[in-house]
Amino acid sequence: MRWNKISDAVIRRLPLYLRVLDDLAQESETDSISSQELGVRAGVGPALVRKDLAWFGEFGKQGVGYEVGFLRDELRKILNLDSKLPVALVGVGSLGVALTRYHLKRYAEDASFNLDLEALFDSDPTKIGRSVEGIPVYGLEDIPSQVEEKGLKIVIVAVPSQNAQDVANLFIEAGIQGILNFAPVKLKAPEAVYVVDTDVSLELQRLAYYVPKVTMS
Amino acid sequence: MRWNKISDAVIRRLPLYLRVLDDLAQESETDSISSQELGVRAGVGPALVRKDLAWFGEFGKQGVGYEVGFLRDELRKILNLDSKLPVALVGVGSLGVALTRYHLKRYAEDASFNLDLEALFDSDPTKIGRSVEGIPVYGLEDIPSQVEEKGLKIVIVAVPSQNAQDVANLFIEAGIQGILNFAPVKLKAPEAVYVVDTDVSLELQRLAYYVPKVTMS
Repeated sequence: MRWNKISDAVIRRLPLYLRVLDDLAQESETDSISSQELGVRAGVGPALVRKDLAWFGEFGKQGVGYEVGFLRDELRKILNLDSKLPVALVGVGSLGVALTRYHLKRYAEDASFNLDLEALFDSDPTKIGRSVEGIPVYGLEDIPSQVEEKGLKIVIVAVPSQNAQDVANLFIEAGIQGILNFAPVKLKAPEAVYVVDTDVSLELQRLAYYVPKVTMS
Repeated sequence: MRWNKISDAVIRRLPLYLRVLDDLAQESETDSISSQELGVRAGVGPALVRKDLAWFGEFGKQGVGYEVGFLRDELRKILNLDSKLPVALVGVGSLGVALTRYHLKRYAEDASFNLDLEALFDSDPTKIGRSVEGIPVYGLEDIPSQVEEKGLKIVIVAVPSQNAQDVANLFIEAGIQGILNFAPVKLKAPEAVYVVDTDVSLELQRLAYYVPKVTMS
């Protein structure tokens, strides 16, 4: 039960390392990277890089560092990004459409972004049956069948806050395993479902705390 | 120099408490709240609630808890949300427009969301001079004058990744103090400028790690 042992702070940094390794693999000038260099590029201290990776195995060699292609493949496996992971999005409003475009761009550009957006959902009958950027829009009544048929594992929630919990429940009942929530509410979910809240307003309010820094120093 | 002493993990939770207190103030049934109740509503353990708030003063009373209106006002002051904080957004593409709408909705609905979106910026001449949801769109050459004139403190960056650093630099040179970055790159900024990266693709990649939880247990 590795997910109970390893802190989420560690997991948060793995995609940062993966991005650096993808960039390096593209540059293709170098086969190996030191924890120092990996840390600088990822914005993480070198000791922390070594400590984070040590949770998952012995990836580095003394004096040589990490082998770029090997470490990238290992990180992909650890993050379940070594094969396509089917993703859904619910709420095809302006935020949902923007996230769809953003998602497809990442999917096209990032070598290790293996999250395949396969289905959109909305309650608006004028949107159902149409498509956005080539992705079909289904009604909420299609959630159970589509989750099963497409093997959808993760749902991005971009509906208004008053509908977010109800909509999340439909996906939870259908067997979804992860939720990325953009609605400014705290979603309740069983322990087996992992919820990440991406609440822009909370981030902005946090940022406000740091604003007087300059004026007061 | 309070910002050096208090961990960002504490600061991240303050807006959660503030949201609970705003909701309570609206319900107006209760004048006080226990750390237990505040914790449950914010999704934080009660001991951590007490510890977090103790950084900023003695807000609670033994056996009574926290006075809702008072604690809300104190948190607003701590987070610099007791008066309007002028905010800018750069990159009026689909994500930028969605964020603008989202922002205005939060501003209208959340009592303590005092972040006032006053100016949009873009490099596209067909967008400059127009407005989105009533907010004017300026060119990048107007950044210095608008930052000064409107007293803009925070900028939301919603431009493509290849332009993000250049655009951020323009705002940094103009004296902005906080950046909320949606571009999937790590922005470099002087220490006096606080950067929050909201990288949706990293969040999704992190979420992927937790997906096999159900199937393996």
